[in-house]
Amino acid sequence: MKKTAQVILESPGGTGLRFRALTDSGLIYHFDSGPDVTDPNPMDALIAGLGACTGMDVMTILRKKRLDVTGYVIDLDGDRRDEHPKSYTRIEIVHRVRGRGLSRAAVEDAVRLSETKYCSVYATLAPAVTLSSRVEVEEETVVAPT
Amino acid sequence: MKKTAQVILESPGGTGLRFRALTDSGLIYHFDSGPDVTDPNPMDALIAGLGACTGMDVMTILRKKRLDVTGYVIDLDGDRRDEHPKSYTRIEIVHRVRGRGLSRAAVEDAVRLSETKYCSVYATLAPAVTLSSRVEVEEETVVAPT
Repeated sequence: MKKTAQVILESPGGTGLRFRALTDSGLIYHFDSGPDVTDPNPMDALIAGLGACTGMDVMTILRKKRLDVTGYVIDLDGDRRDEHPKSYTRIEIVHRVRGRGLSRAAVEDAVRLSETKYCSVYATLAPAVTLSSRVEVEEETVVAPT
Repeated sequence: MKKTAQVILESPGGTGLRFRALTDSGLIYHFDSGPDVTDPNPMDALIAGLGACTGMDVMTILRKKRLDVTGYVIDLDGDRRDEHPKSYTRIEIVHRVRGRGLSRAAVEDAVRLSETKYCSVYATLAPAVTLSSRVEVEEETVVAPT
C-alpha cells in the first residue's frame, strides 16, 4: 500500500524554517525549527506518532474486550545520539491505563498485540531503535454522579 | 540527548480515537484514526516528518551558501507492507527547488549532507526503510516587481 506526502516551505524568502505538510488523506501538519517556534519539529512527530499509533491499537483492543477504560496516558522517553545525526537510539513507552475492573494482563496482552502485529510505526522503528514498554494499571476510584 | 512526549487519549468514554500529544518543547500535536478524521494519523507524521527534517537541513545549507531559493517542495512517496504491521518498506524523496541561478550540484550537495550527516529522522529510519532521493532544480522566471 502507498502513503504520500507533500512538504512545502512557507516564506522561502524569509528567515524562518516553517514547513506545511499535506498528507494523502488531505490533512495538514506544520513543522517548525524556529526562531519563533509554534509547531513541533520532525523528531517530535516521530516519538509522538509512536505513542499515538500503539495507543490507538491498545484502545481498539480494550474496547473490543468491552473493558471500561476511563483514562489513558502514554509517556514516551527517548534517547538520541549527542552527535549528528541525532537519531533515536532508545525509546521507552509507559502505558498508564485507568479504568474499572481492568486486569493488568489484559492491558499487557493488548500492548503485546500492538507491538508484535498491528502498530505500523512501531514496526518501522523497531529495526533501528531499541524499543521497550511497560504497563501501569490504576483502578478508577471516582464515583460517577448518579 | 533526551526527547520525551506525553500522548493522551481524549474522550476515553466515546467511540473516537483522538490523541493529544504534548512534546517536551511544550507543543501539541493531534492524532486521529477516525471515524470523523480531522487530524493526520501516526504514519502520516513519519513520512511528513522525514520531509520536513531533510528540508530544514537543505534550506539551512542553501541559505548559508547565500543561494537564492524562491520555492521548495518535497514530494514523498512511500510503500508500506500490505499485511499487518503495515510498516514502511521504501520512501522516495523528491526535492523540487526553485530559485535564481541555482546549480543542481549545490542542491545535491546539500541533500547529501542532510542524508549522511544532519537529518535525525533520516538516520532513524535508514536502517529499516529503503530511502532514496533525487533533486529537481527549476529556474525562477517570474520577474520581481521593481
